[in-house]
Amino acid sequence: MSNSGNTIDLNSDMGEGYGSWTRGDDIAILDVVSSANVACGMHAGDPEIMANIFAEAGKRGVAVGAHPGFPDLWGFGRRIIPFSHGEIERLVAYQIGAAMALSTYANNPITYVKAHGALGNLTQTDHGVATAIAKAIKAVDPSLVCVTFANGIMIPIAQELGLTTKSEVFVDRAYTEEGHLVNRKEPGAVLHDAQQAADRMLRMVKQGGIETVSGKFLPASFDTICVHSDTPGAVDFARFVRKALESNGVAIRPFTH
Amino acid sequence: MSNSGNTIDLNSDMGEGYGSWTRGDDIAILDVVSSANVACGMHAGDPEIMANIFAEAGKRGVAVGAHPGFPDLWGFGRRIIPFSHGEIERLVAYQIGAAMALSTYANNPITYVKAHGALGNLTQTDHGVATAIAKAIKAVDPSLVCVTFANGIMIPIAQELGLTTKSEVFVDRAYTEEGHLVNRKEPGAVLHDAQQAADRMLRMVKQGGIETVSGKFLPASFDTICVHSDTPGAVDFARFVRKALESNGVAIRPFTH
Amino acid sequence: MSNSGNTIDLNSDMGEGYGSWTRGDDIAILDVVSSANVACGMHAGDPEIMANIFAEAGKRGVAVGAHPGFPDLWGFGRRIIPFSHGEIERLVAYQIGAAMALSTYANNPITYVKAHGALGNLTQTDHGVATAIAKAIKAVDPSLVCVTFANGIMIPIAQELGLTTKSEVFVDRAYTEEGHLVNRKEPGAVLHDAQQAADRMLRMVKQGGIETVSGKFLPASFDTICVHSDTPGAVDFARFVRKALESNGVAIRPFTH
Amino acid sequence: MSNSGNTIDLNSDMGEGYGSWTRGDDIAILDVVSSANVACGMHAGDPEIMANIFAEAGKRGVAVGAHPGFPDLWGFGRRIIPFSHGEIERLVAYQIGAAMALSTYANNPITYVKAHGALGNLTQTDHGVATAIAKAIKAVDPSLVCVTFANGIMIPIAQELGLTTKSEVFVDRAYTEEGHLVNRKEPGAVLHDAQQAADRMLRMVKQGGIETVSGKFLPASFDTICVHSDTPGAVDFARFVRKALESNGVAIRPFTH
Repeated sequence: MSNSGNTIDLNSDMGEGYGSWTRGDDIAILDVVSSANVACGMHAGDPEIMANIFAEAGKRGVAVGAHPGFPDLWGFGRRIIPFSHGEIERLVAYQIGAAMALSTYANNPITYVKAHGALGNLTQTDHGVATAIAKAIKAVDPSLVCVTFANGIMIPIAQELGLTTKSEVFVDRAYTEEGHLVNRKEPGAVLHDAQQAADRMLRMVKQGGIETVSGKFLPASFDTICVHSDTPGAVDFARFVRKALESNGVAIRPFTH
Repeated sequence: MSNSGNTIDLNSDMGEGYGSWTRGDDIAILDVVSSANVACGMHAGDPEIMANIFAEAGKRGVAVGAHPGFPDLWGFGRRIIPFSHGEIERLVAYQIGAAMALSTYANNPITYVKAHGALGNLTQTDHGVATAIAKAIKAVDPSLVCVTFANGIMIPIAQELGLTTKSEVFVDRAYTEEGHLVNRKEPGAVLHDAQQAADRMLRMVKQGGIETVSGKFLPASFDTICVHSDTPGAVDFARFVRKALESNGVAIRPFTH
Repeated sequence: MSNSGNTIDLNSDMGEGYGSWTRGDDIAILDVVSSANVACGMHAGDPEIMANIFAEAGKRGVAVGAHPGFPDLWGFGRRIIPFSHGEIERLVAYQIGAAMALSTYANNPITYVKAHGALGNLTQTDHGVATAIAKAIKAVDPSLVCVTFANGIMIPIAQELGLTTKSEVFVDRAYTEEGHLVNRKEPGAVLHDAQQAADRMLRMVKQGGIETVSGKFLPASFDTICVHSDTPGAVDFARFVRKALESNGVAIRPFTH
Repeated sequence: MSNSGNTIDLNSDMGEGYGSWTRGDDIAILDVVSSANVACGMHAGDPEIMANIFAEAGKRGVAVGAHPGFPDLWGFGRRIIPFSHGEIERLVAYQIGAAMALSTYANNPITYVKAHGALGNLTQTDHGVATAIAKAIKAVDPSLVCVTFANGIMIPIAQELGLTTKSEVFVDRAYTEEGHLVNRKEPGAVLHDAQQAADRMLRMVKQGGIETVSGKFLPASFDTICVHSDTPGAVDFARFVRKALESNGVAIRPFTH
C-alpha cells in the first residue's frame, strides 16, 4: 500500500493566473500543501507565474508537478477542445517540457504530472486520452510520476507503460458506491463543511480506503488529497484539514519523498 | 578554430507556421541543411509542427535546436515586445523546455539554442538580453550550445557562463568592415544572386573569415551558415549554395557532430 | 425566385491569414468573385488584413460580408469549440461589429453575414446555433443579409426574425437527393474537374435548382455560388467557372445589388 | 465651459477580466459611476464580459464607452507594443466596432471612446497616436465622443477632425504646475486619502480648473473624473468621493446626457 496511514500528501492546483490576472492566494496555500500542481501556460500560467511558484514552493519544501491542460485561456481548460489523441500527446509533452525547464531554473524540478480540468476529467473515462498523457510522460521523462484519480482507469494504463503512479482523492467530493466522484450536479456531491471533510479524510487515511456517500468503505489506495486553492475560503478550509490530520498523527509530506 | 575549412554547417529557421498556416517548404529545406532551428510556439510553431520537424530532421540526420522568440504570433517575433531581462530569461527557458520535450519525444533531442527575430537581433547590441538568454540556457541545460552571430557580443557572455558557443554567418547578407551585418536598409545589404553568394561563402569557409563589402577579409571563426527557408526561391538558393560548397570539397554537417 | 437565371453571385472566403501568415491569393480571387466573406479576427484575420480586403474589394465593386467563426486560431475555426448558444450570439455579434467598423473605415460597408467553418456547419443541423447567429445579426444590424445553405434550416429561422436571407450552393460539392451536401468522406463528394463543375453550375443557375449526384433536379432557390480561395489551383478553377457562366449569358454580380 | 460646476461625470475602467479571470468589482462600481469604459477584447474583455457590463450599466443609467487598448492580454495593455500609426488606427477601429455591436446588442449603445493603458498614455505625448485614434473614431462613427486628458494634446487634434471631445481628470493623481499628471514615480503623485481627494475634486469641480501640487489653480475645462475600479478599496474610495460631491450640491451624471 502506498501510504502507511501515518503520512499523506496534500496537493493543490496553483499558478492559475495569466499576466496580470490572478486566481486564489497561491502563497498562502503553499504554506498548507505538500505538493503544488503548476499550470503550464496553455489554459493558465505564464513563465513568470510558473517560475515564481516553483521557487516559492522550493523555499517551503513543497514538491511541484506539471499541470497541463487544453490550450484554452478563454475557457480556463475546463472545456473539451477537439484534439486527437496524438495531438494531446504532443501538447502535453510540450507543457511538461516547459514545466521541467522552469522548475529546473527555479531549483525545484518537477517530480510529477497531473492533468488539469477537462483534460484531467477525460482520463476518468477515455482510455485514449489517458494513454496519450501517459505516453507523453514516458517519452519526455519516464521518471515523472503520473498522478491520477484513485481507482481510475489511468492507473493500469500508466503502469503498463512503466510509469510510477500515485492517486488522489478529493477533500470535498463525495464518492459513489463504486468509488467514483459523485457528479457535481447531484445533491451532496460537494462537502462544504471543513470539519466534516476533515473527519472523513482522517477515516479514509487511517483505514486506507474510500468512504462512499452511504458510509461504506472501499479498500483503495491513495497517496494524496486534493484541496482547492481558488474557491472562497479555500485557504482556511485547507488549513483546517491539515491541522485535523496532523493533530491526529498524520504527517503531511510530498508523496514523492 | 572551430572549423577546418573542410566542413561547415548549414542552418535554417523552420517550423514557422501556426495551426493550419505554413511558411516555407520545411521538408524541402530539411534535405539541404544540416541544422534546423525550430520555433517554439510563442512567435510561431505549435506542438504538432515542432514534433513533426524534429522527427523529419531526425530521419535525415539533421541536428535540431530551439529557436525561441518573443511571444508575438501577430508580429511573428519580429517586433521588440517590452519584457525585462528577467522576463526574457524565463520566457526563453520555457521555450527551451518545450523544445527539449518535443525533440526528445521525436527521438532527435535538441543540441543548441538560437534566438529568433527581434530577440535574436537584440543579442547583437543589448548585453542584458544576451546575458538573459545565456542564463536561461545555462539554467535549463548547460550542455546546449549557444548559437549566435559571428563576432557577436554574446560569444564572450555565454562563454563566461560556461556555455559552448557556435557562431553563424548569413549566406545572403553583406558585412561591414567591422564584421557586422550591413543594415537591411542599405543598398547591397542582401545578396540576391546564388552564384555570388555561394562563391563568397566558399572563400569565407576556405579562408576562415568574414569577407566585408569592400572585399576585405576579417579573420573570424564561424561554424554555421544561415540560409533562408521562407523567401521566394529559398530552397533553390540553399540547394545551389550547398552544391557549390560540396563540389569544392566542403562537407556539410551539423556543428554539433 | 431570387435570381432570374441570368445573374448570379460568386462568393469566396477571404482574409484568412493572420499577422504575417497568408492563405490563398486574395487579390487574384477578388478579380473573379462578386462577394468576399471576410474573416473577423477570431479564427483568422486581423485588423490589417480585414481593412485591406475591404478596401481592395471596394475598388473592384466586390460586395463584402462578415465571416465570423469560433475563436480558434490554432484550429482555423474548423473545430467545434464548446460555447453555449448565448455565447455564440455574443461572439458573433462582436465579430460583426468589428467587420462593420473596418469595412466602414475602408469605405465598403459589409452587407451580409455568413458563418465560417465549424460554426457555419452547425447551422445545417443545430437550430440553436442557427438561431443564435440570426439573433446576433438582428441585434447588431437587421439590415445585414443572412447568407446560409440552400435548403438550409437557417433560412426559415432567420426569416422569422425578420432578416433577409440569401442562400448558397458550392461550386465543387455534390448534393444528395435531399439537396444536402454529400459528406466529404464519401466518394464523389468533391468535383475536381472545372469543366464538369462549370457545366453543372450552368445547369443549376439556368434551371434554378440543385442537381443531385444522381442527376435529378430539385427546385431550389439560391443566390450565390461559393468558390474556394485557398485550395491548389483555386484561382484558375474559379476563373474558369466565371468565364463559363458569363460566356453562357449569366452575369456575375453581388446578390446585394 | 463644459460643466456648470453643478454636475460632473464619474468614469471608471471596467470589464477588465478575461474568460474566467476577473479584475475589480464591476457591479459595485457601476452603482457609483455615471460612465463605464469597457475593455474591447484585445488587452482584456471578451464578448461575455462586454455584453454583461453594457447591460448592467444600462439598467443603472450608466453611459458606456469603448476602451480600446493594445492587443496584449499578457501585458494587460500596459506595454507599448510596436504598431505603426496606421495599424493603431485599424486596431482601434476594430475594437470600437466590437463595442458598438455588443452595446447595441445589450440595448445600451456606446457614446464615447477612451483609450486604455499604454495606448492612452501615448495620446499625451505622441501626436501620431492621438491622430490615429481620432481618425479611427471619425471613420467608424463620428458621433462618438473622444474622451482624453484635460489639457491634453489630443483635444485640438480630435476637434480639428470634427469630433466632440470631453476631458477627464483623475481623482487620485496630483497635477504639475503645467496641468499634467505628476509622474507616478514622484512622491505625492498619488493621493491615497479619500477625504483629501474628495475635497480637492470638489474645489476643482466648483471652480472649473485643475489644482496643482502647489495648490495653484489652472483654469481648465474637464467633464469627467476617472476613479479606479481595481485597486484595493477602490469601491469605497469612489463611493466616498461621489457622496462628498453630491452632498455639496454636485450632481453626478453622464457627460453625454
